[in-house]
Amino acid sequence: MARLFALVKKFFKKSADKEKDSQLVESIEQITGSSPKNLNLYKLALMHTSAARGVSTDGFRESNERLEYLGDAILGAVIADYLFKKFPYKGEGFLTEIRSRIVNRESLNNLAKKIGLQKLIIHDGHRRTMYTHKSMGGDALEALVGAVYLDRGFKHSRKFIIKRLITPHFDLEKIIETNLNFKSIMIEWAQRESKQLRFDIVEERGDTHNKEFVARVVIDNEAFASGSGYSKKKAEQAAAEKACELLKLK
Amino acid sequence: MARLFALVKKFFKKSADKEKDSQLVESIEQITGSSPKNLNLYKLALMHTSAARGVSTDGFRESNERLEYLGDAILGAVIADYLFKKFPYKGEGFLTEIRSRIVNRESLNNLAKKIGLQKLIIHDGHRRTMYTHKSMGGDALEALVGAVYLDRGFKHSRKFIIKRLITPHFDLEKIIETNLNFKSIMIEWAQRESKQLRFDIVEERGDTHNKEFVARVVIDNEAFASGSGYSKKKAEQAAAEKACELLKLK
Repeated sequence: MARLFALVKKFFKKSADKEKDSQLVESIEQITGSSPKNLNLYKLALMHTSAARGVSTDGFRESNERLEYLGDAILGAVIADYLFKKFPYKGEGFLTEIRSRIVNRESLNNLAKKIGLQKLIIHDGHRRTMYTHKSMGGDALEALVGAVYLDRGFKHSRKFIIKRLITPHFDLEKIIETNLNFKSIMIEWAQRESKQLRFDIVEERGDTHNKEFVARVVIDNEAFASGSGYSKKKAEQAAAEKACELLKLK
Repeated sequence: MARLFALVKKFFKKSADKEKDSQLVESIEQITGSSPKNLNLYKLALMHTSAARGVSTDGFRESNERLEYLGDAILGAVIADYLFKKFPYKGEGFLTEIRSRIVNRESLNNLAKKIGLQKLIIHDGHRRTMYTHKSMGGDALEALVGAVYLDRGFKHSRKFIIKRLITPHFDLEKIIETNLNFKSIMIEWAQRESKQLRFDIVEERGDTHNKEFVARVVIDNEAFASGSGYSKKKAEQAAAEKACELLKLK
């Protein structure tokens, strides 16, 4: 009798798992636009570290972190390609900046919520986890890209990224209109070229209520460009913009 | 007569250009393993900024910088995929570190020399340029990857990267044996997770000739892990390694 009961229980568990799987398949289809071939990849993409901890037997945590690493790279390549072709007359400083505005954590976290991915994530269930792992959504989105890439190949993942993520959810015109962050363009440039870079505030003009600052971009200990503004930040941005112009990074 | 002379000159110039082009095609074939469809892409990949300056008429510099931006992303994605599959039991910290050891500037510059790309680069001819643009080779290599990608697609560029660049020129075992840079793994992690990270030297033991240092990893102003060593750098590495273990980034 106990054996029969166990069998019945097993049967119901199996059928519940099946039901869960088919719900997941449907959600994945809605999000990615195509049906998964290997569902396990997508399950892994949704597995947050907090839920994966302790599951492993050989020290290898089966969480979405490896897929996130892969998806981050695929996402970067696809968006690089997309922007490269969309803006044939723009320099690499512009392209890099626009890409980073699309793939930054905040933007990906928001996107994960919008497309309904956030609620599919499996985590430890503690409320705390939602707060301490703020980038859970963006991480899972990158991992999903990794899963689609492994499951269906590069072309398919490109289609998913452009048709399902970029086109419907990003207003490129609006992203571009927002002032470019020239300081970060300069910082990236300096890292790439192994230059020492520093921003100095070299002058403060006017009275307390109407102060103007002058900032200077210093490259390898040599003054390179300067700019002014009504806050230190704005002065630095102006100086950085001038430097970008001189270096033709703009 | 003058007209005939101009025609003859034009003919010889054309035939010299043709000869040059067929030499370039051969070199590209030797390097990438396949013949270019659109040679102009490869010419652009070899065009250093110093040679491109002043060529443009509309403010758009026709140099290899845009292709470099694209190729950098494609290279990153292909190597991410390659390492992901090659090391199925390694965490993302390991994969990220190994990838950065392969695609760092120095490594790509060396590779550009090894495969004979360096000497194909078109620059302004000044000797100074060779010294002031140390990463010219690596930049051109990335641009070449971008050209192959645009010319022949993702699969082809993957084949080029793995069969022609990684497999013959990188000894993965050796790269892995070199101690992992745990400090940089920690820095990347902190950026990703938006944590404040600091390394403090909290103790110096022993006399001048045999000094031991104790370093502490501080995350969001809280002591997280510590380690010791016979130089500040080694102590920081030891502390970072400990922190990586605790965070399961190792």
